[in-house]
Amino acid sequence: MKIIAQSLPNIPWEDRPSGSSELLWRYSKNPIIKRDEAKGSNSIFNSAVVPFNEKFAGVFRVDDRQRRMNIRRGFSEDGINWKIDDEPINFIQETKDPVESEYKYDPRVVFIEDRYWITWCNGYHGPTIGVGYTYDFEKFYQIENAFLPFNRNGVLFPRKINGKYAMLSRPSDNGHTPFGDIFYSESPDMVHWGVHRYVMGAGYTPWQSLKIGAGPVPIETEEGWLLFYHGVLLSCNGYVYSFGAALLDLDKPWKVIKRSKEYLLSPQMNYECVGDVPNVVFPVAALVDGSTGKLAIYYGGADTVVALAFGYVQEIVDWLKYEN
Amino acid sequence: MKIIAQSLPNIPWEDRPSGSSELLWRYSKNPIIKRDEAKGSNSIFNSAVVPFNEKFAGVFRVDDRQRRMNIRRGFSEDGINWKIDDEPINFIQETKDPVESEYKYDPRVVFIEDRYWITWCNGYHGPTIGVGYTYDFEKFYQIENAFLPFNRNGVLFPRKINGKYAMLSRPSDNGHTPFGDIFYSESPDMVHWGVHRYVMGAGYTPWQSLKIGAGPVPIETEEGWLLFYHGVLLSCNGYVYSFGAALLDLDKPWKVIKRSKEYLLSPQMNYECVGDVPNVVFPVAALVDGSTGKLAIYYGGADTVVALAFGYVQEIVDWLKYEN
Amino acid sequence: MKIIAQSLPNIPWEDRPSGSSELLWRYSKNPIIKRDEAKGSNSIFNSAVVPFNEKFAGVFRVDDRQRRMNIRRGFSEDGINWKIDDEPINFIQETKDPVESEYKYDPRVVFIEDRYWITWCNGYHGPTIGVGYTYDFEKFYQIENAFLPFNRNGVLFPRKINGKYAMLSRPSDNGHTPFGDIFYSESPDMVHWGVHRYVMGAGYTPWQSLKIGAGPVPIETEEGWLLFYHGVLLSCNGYVYSFGAALLDLDKPWKVIKRSKEYLLSPQMNYECVGDVPNVVFPVAALVDGSTGKLAIYYGGADTVVALAFGYVQEIVDWLKYEN
Amino acid sequence: MKIIAQSLPNIPWEDRPSGSSELLWRYSKNPIIKRDEAKGSNSIFNSAVVPFNEKFAGVFRVDDRQRRMNIRRGFSEDGINWKIDDEPINFIQETKDPVESEYKYDPRVVFIEDRYWITWCNGYHGPTIGVGYTYDFEKFYQIENAFLPFNRNGVLFPRKINGKYAMLSRPSDNGHTPFGDIFYSESPDMVHWGVHRYVMGAGYTPWQSLKIGAGPVPIETEEGWLLFYHGVLLSCNGYVYSFGAALLDLDKPWKVIKRSKEYLLSPQMNYECVGDVPNVVFPVAALVDGSTGKLAIYYGGADTVVALAFGYVQEIVDWLKYEN
Amino acid sequence: MKIIAQSLPNIPWEDRPSGSSELLWRYSKNPIIKRDEAKGSNSIFNSAVVPFNEKFAGVFRVDDRQRRMNIRRGFSEDGINWKIDDEPINFIQETKDPVESEYKYDPRVVFIEDRYWITWCNGYHGPTIGVGYTYDFEKFYQIENAFLPFNRNGVLFPRKINGKYAMLSRPSDNGHTPFGDIFYSESPDMVHWGVHRYVMGAGYTPWQSLKIGAGPVPIETEEGWLLFYHGVLLSCNGYVYSFGAALLDLDKPWKVIKRSKEYLLSPQMNYECVGDVPNVVFPVAALVDGSTGKLAIYYGGADTVVALAFGYVQEIVDWLKYEN
Amino acid sequence: MKIIAQSLPNIPWEDRPSGSSELLWRYSKNPIIKRDEAKGSNSIFNSAVVPFNEKFAGVFRVDDRQRRMNIRRGFSEDGINWKIDDEPINFIQETKDPVESEYKYDPRVVFIEDRYWITWCNGYHGPTIGVGYTYDFEKFYQIENAFLPFNRNGVLFPRKINGKYAMLSRPSDNGHTPFGDIFYSESPDMVHWGVHRYVMGAGYTPWQSLKIGAGPVPIETEEGWLLFYHGVLLSCNGYVYSFGAALLDLDKPWKVIKRSKEYLLSPQMNYECVGDVPNVVFPVAALVDGSTGKLAIYYGGADTVVALAFGYVQEIVDWLKYEN
Repeated sequence: MKIIAQSLPNIPWEDRPSGSSELLWRYSKNPIIKRDEAKGSNSIFNSAVVPFNEKFAGVFRVDDRQRRMNIRRGFSEDGINWKIDDEPINFIQETKDPVESEYKYDPRVVFIEDRYWITWCNGYHGPTIGVGYTYDFEKFYQIENAFLPFNRNGVLFPRKINGKYAMLSRPSDNGHTPFGDIFYSESPDMVHWGVHRYVMGAGYTPWQSLKIGAGPVPIETEEGWLLFYHGVLLSCNGYVYSFGAALLDLDKPWKVIKRSKEYLLSPQMNYECVGDVPNVVFPVAALVDGSTGKLAIYYGGADTVVALAFGYVQEIVDWLKYEN
Repeated sequence: MKIIAQSLPNIPWEDRPSGSSELLWRYSKNPIIKRDEAKGSNSIFNSAVVPFNEKFAGVFRVDDRQRRMNIRRGFSEDGINWKIDDEPINFIQETKDPVESEYKYDPRVVFIEDRYWITWCNGYHGPTIGVGYTYDFEKFYQIENAFLPFNRNGVLFPRKINGKYAMLSRPSDNGHTPFGDIFYSESPDMVHWGVHRYVMGAGYTPWQSLKIGAGPVPIETEEGWLLFYHGVLLSCNGYVYSFGAALLDLDKPWKVIKRSKEYLLSPQMNYECVGDVPNVVFPVAALVDGSTGKLAIYYGGADTVVALAFGYVQEIVDWLKYEN
Repeated sequence: MKIIAQSLPNIPWEDRPSGSSELLWRYSKNPIIKRDEAKGSNSIFNSAVVPFNEKFAGVFRVDDRQRRMNIRRGFSEDGINWKIDDEPINFIQETKDPVESEYKYDPRVVFIEDRYWITWCNGYHGPTIGVGYTYDFEKFYQIENAFLPFNRNGVLFPRKINGKYAMLSRPSDNGHTPFGDIFYSESPDMVHWGVHRYVMGAGYTPWQSLKIGAGPVPIETEEGWLLFYHGVLLSCNGYVYSFGAALLDLDKPWKVIKRSKEYLLSPQMNYECVGDVPNVVFPVAALVDGSTGKLAIYYGGADTVVALAFGYVQEIVDWLKYEN
Repeated sequence: MKIIAQSLPNIPWEDRPSGSSELLWRYSKNPIIKRDEAKGSNSIFNSAVVPFNEKFAGVFRVDDRQRRMNIRRGFSEDGINWKIDDEPINFIQETKDPVESEYKYDPRVVFIEDRYWITWCNGYHGPTIGVGYTYDFEKFYQIENAFLPFNRNGVLFPRKINGKYAMLSRPSDNGHTPFGDIFYSESPDMVHWGVHRYVMGAGYTPWQSLKIGAGPVPIETEEGWLLFYHGVLLSCNGYVYSFGAALLDLDKPWKVIKRSKEYLLSPQMNYECVGDVPNVVFPVAALVDGSTGKLAIYYGGADTVVALAFGYVQEIVDWLKYEN
Repeated sequence: MKIIAQSLPNIPWEDRPSGSSELLWRYSKNPIIKRDEAKGSNSIFNSAVVPFNEKFAGVFRVDDRQRRMNIRRGFSEDGINWKIDDEPINFIQETKDPVESEYKYDPRVVFIEDRYWITWCNGYHGPTIGVGYTYDFEKFYQIENAFLPFNRNGVLFPRKINGKYAMLSRPSDNGHTPFGDIFYSESPDMVHWGVHRYVMGAGYTPWQSLKIGAGPVPIETEEGWLLFYHGVLLSCNGYVYSFGAALLDLDKPWKVIKRSKEYLLSPQMNYECVGDVPNVVFPVAALVDGSTGKLAIYYGGADTVVALAFGYVQEIVDWLKYEN
Repeated sequence: MKIIAQSLPNIPWEDRPSGSSELLWRYSKNPIIKRDEAKGSNSIFNSAVVPFNEKFAGVFRVDDRQRRMNIRRGFSEDGINWKIDDEPINFIQETKDPVESEYKYDPRVVFIEDRYWITWCNGYHGPTIGVGYTYDFEKFYQIENAFLPFNRNGVLFPRKINGKYAMLSRPSDNGHTPFGDIFYSESPDMVHWGVHRYVMGAGYTPWQSLKIGAGPVPIETEEGWLLFYHGVLLSCNGYVYSFGAALLDLDKPWKVIKRSKEYLLSPQMNYECVGDVPNVVFPVAALVDGSTGKLAIYYGGADTVVALAFGYVQEIVDWLKYEN
């Protein structure tokens, strides 16, 4: 199987622990970013990273001690030790009649053609999908929101599909939404969006029975788009966020080829079970080394810290296709 | 003041009752369409009409005796006595990979340039805005849904604004949504929509404190777009739907010039208070005679019947501007 | 088609109104029992009647002016004009260690073999199915509750099936239950119940989308058991109770042969739409004339009064089989 | 039995209908005030009246067409035909640092010693009990709110008890409160209140099972204070407001001597069942003729209109004591 | 006092820690079974064990990594170290027209006369009580569900009472039920159940104020049936499950002789407070050594692991009788 | 700046950790009181202490193993090691007609003029503010409840203001109240309360967006009253209690001079995140050394234990004024 990704020899990595047969294994020094590692931070989690200039750049969800949600830039030599800015990203407004951004959270970052696109959950009379870009991680530009409220977990595909930009998202309501399915939309210009298609919904197996949402930017393989996505189960004591994977059709990504019945990771470690929101693992970024198929997934723990898990793209695709 | 509307000498009409000082007055023979006047109908309400070939055509919400929601075509000589089809409109699908329409309700109709556009609340994994058109009220074509779910009350402006199609809508959730504000969106092609703007929200005065939604297609006047909209108050025994009016900026319709503090009509007659949903008046269409400024508003009563109210555009605009 | 029912020449009756094509038509003098026709009554509704000694006997739900729910005996010459007792039925307790009955409502009555069995919703630490009998409508005996709470709408079949008593019921919770499916259970002795089977659930078509429950005692026909049942739709202003019909397998009544997509009757008349609970038609008894197939259904209106509708068994069975 | 009330020969009156055995009977020309009888009114209901200068004065709840709640003054020659002011009462503020009154509703009026005291539900960061007074129904003065939010149905006793002003009230929350009991409080100065005592709660019989609240100013009799109070039952389609009566101890009014198991009046007439809030009768004022014991109760119908019912104090006290 | 139980010299055991005066003390090596000790398990908890062939057998709730709930067989030499099967128990269906089992959880096991009976929460259009048996822990047979849905925590008595099988259960709804009382039912044949009696309800003291449910199979003593049961308190952050004990009448087990005001164990250790459902201790099995009165209780911790606590039957009965 | 407080040289104290720039820092040996340190206790938290006879006295919330809430007396030499009574405080009733106290929790203690006043959340047909006093911590007297239910977090100012006793409180409902603002009230005699004023509400910044409530007795400074108060954020998994500070006007304490946008302390340590109610820090008492401005705040952790944090009054006031 071929993975459509560049070589990334400096991908953060730790071999599978001996004796383990897990498809994804946690980094032994998790969490890699603690709650108070940025200036004035209450918590740092649900954050996105990309290879940048032989090193790494990232956009981090940093809630401050007012518990305001916003995103900040960070850089790293190794993808594990990060230097995060003291202040949120200051976007240059690219809309006439600029619209207010009441809050920003859960960013994703992806390079398409000539620039790094950033999407996030943007507060505009309710949560919707904010869109921005940067060429150099120095200047950031914000354009129109992709959708009407209420929406969360907007995730771009890493290239145009049939000549159009393509995005997954999860229509929501304006609270702690007790439902949520993944949809596909496309755009000629990153501003006007249409051709909305239902991809898949909550309820397939119990760990994903309440709601689901796209995680990292999909990974292109010969077998289809490999999508990691979170799923929520409602216990009598609240939401439990786990995550699994799916394979989507390369040309019509709203067609699901395979979807994981089991979760790949669920909240079991103390830094995933105890924190501002107990029992959450929430993946938002994935680095892939195209040469080896090594995979490093960045996920939030308990809405409080950033953690890392490792695996092989090939193994996960095989598991989806043959064992699931 | 000038109204930008064609002459419509055969507009349904009844003079204001002597002694009345109401801005809107009900037709004395309301309801004009009773619940069982179409074949197999449970109820007929929230329906849209337009002048057509010197007479009138309409798209009617007809719930059948399964209580399924769908829309049917109707014709009338006088705008009051209607002949409604026995079956729902059968749309020709203009999307590749046609998407299912689980239900259709609350249609609006408007003529733009060369055809009659129809929008409605369309069931596609939740309510969203369906879009279709007809040239002749014989063949009907359905194109892509305008938005992701969840949305209701999609209402087109009767002409392009700054070169773009323009639509008002009300983001919702998938139940009996206890919130709702009006937004504006625009499109180059009726398929891809963006540049979403908040227009106005629930909560201005008590009759409109829970949620609001656009009603008939806005009426163009020199003073701005005249929009009738419904508002909902939550009593201890449920929702009460009344309606009022607003003036929107001609070029930037998300800018509200004036908004009615008082309602213009609230459920007070038996056919508005008793029925499948008690205490509802819900306006969805307005006929205007450009020569005289006469106005005929079609509204649903108690989610069961169609009723008619009359007024003068000029008086309502003056009231909004000076007395409100 | 053969109806397995005795001749009942004095069945209450009124011919179908000329011009009507309704399968069920309302009695022109509805309601037949008004809210205050029994001593100290707040309302009289959801009541059961049977042929008795060439005339008619009944068990009536009479809520008093404390709004306590209880059941009373009544007699009638013609099935339309009723004389209802001043006090609730006083049951002789046939259980050792008699258990309290906190309230009684929504009775059904059926003759099996040697006596008239009465079932009702019985208050015993929550609603469940109370069971009693009488030979003569003079002395009434109460035996063990059929089920654990929470249950409502327990309806016996009019004969043993495969040697066992058989009952339909609707498991519930202890409030205004927002769900409800029909189940089948059987008993060797009217005391111990088991072999529970799911019959059919809410959600088939919109009028019955929230919950359903068995109505009158099923009517035996060659085609199967004809069951009238109520269904509830949740509007933004509360529950709407309509009713339809189904055909159940004669030997395995949990197998549904046919089920009505449309309702047969929905709340449309003032005495069905206005009262203690607006928008309710709730059938609980049916008289059948085995010779002619005439059918008289007793139903509650707005949880306030008793009304009557007429039809032909044959027509309804045909409609279920061929037109539904 | 002696009633401690002045002679009121011009009390509005209509004899008990022949054949009726009701303790309270409705005025045959109800409603006495329709929804639109005041300038700009949406509804007029839940209003208080007192004898004044040989005639009658009143304080009326008039919701305007914004659905704002406020209170207005009215005068009447006969207690039936009323002239209501065009504007709400403008209170002179008697507090330093005057506090805002966001809305006013459900007023009560009572003469104590030298002036007419008015209490109402007052909006101050939630509903609480507003207090004001007038000597002449020309100038009105507002003093401090009696309690912290959230409270409704504050009703003063018509004289000091043990040297203190005394008030009944119903602690609430800030919505359509699904609970509510009646408490007693006392004050040396109408500003500072304490010695709070529980009087009686919801749940005694079903018509009053959800919440209860004091109605008109208590009527002093030798047997105790005669209190009319409303009670609410929660049906699957909302709240049903009825009313009954209780006898409270003269010296320790938090001790209940008798309480009605049955309601005295429940919503049964069209003007009580259909309106802005279906199924409401809500008593707020009572006139008594000390000479004859005639009683005229003013109550709101469906939160829309004012209606009148008649009875005899003696009969009701006897019923409470002996038949209840 | 005499305990009616066989000698069990190999009961798992650890003496009370020195200095402790606890009636129940935790095993120092808790949890005895971790979440991932069975093949493909997400969690192992709420499981039942019995002495079997001088050793121990058990039925374990094992949720898999889809979070599906099912039960598996296990064996142990010492009651502490367990070998659990790789797959769920495959029951041979003993009903004609076999009914589906959508899920199985929270099993109890008890030997009566000639076989081991197993009860569990069984998914059949909602949760109800599934019933099965085995003679040898090799072949397992499933018979009819005991009750209609919705029910949980069905627990058999270890012998017939007055010639009938006897079961405790907890009627529920179909979600995270916010109520729950314990009832008693009896059966001549394990298929048909009746003579339902209320045993005791939620609300006695705060730790058991929301709902309660039977735990292990009751232990017969001269003083009555010793029942351990869980109770739930609702905090602002969810349910807290503790457990206590009660003594039930030997012949009429629905008569409660004594009930614990205090809990015996509440979630305080990390493995009880942190996991898939925080703050849960949930007892489902008890081993008793008839010779010494030693008691070993198996309970679930945080819906994630199996833990063990020890005590003496005699002490607990004395505490219930004299100190409680 | 001057702090109006006596010298307290034996205030519990630990210097700010080197490298820390926190305004409040936790005691390194937290928690100072564990859950089971009092006889029969389930938990000890939310407790109040005062200097007393050169040492310290306190009133402790001790929930017992029934989970009943009550308050007990304790003494300490150093403010850190406490000896708590085996039984709740037995108050001598100072009301005629004593009223029941169904439970007591969350006490505050303050010395005013000649005695120590104690306020707490008192169960009287719902939660309200109980009031008592002691001269010597030997005899305790209870007087009238300050307010009608429903109220929590009643906190007295440490001296009369403008000749009146003054209290902050938080009107509530009778459950896990999802709203809550701070109000001010005053009293001439500690029995009758009035002149209620809104101080500040929930919603200023996200950590305090759901509800807020006063914590320790306000500290008098030249700049105003320094108030520590808790705030609650609602996550998808429940309430998170943090705390911050505000400065209130000395003469009109309902006027807020400054309010903290950031929290000062949020639940981050294991004893704050894991326990009977996860994610709670709840301050109820503060000791101040008037000479040095040292501050020791007692707060509850996870509704389970008592913890201690330190700071300087001056620094916090400066932060509020200049950096906030």
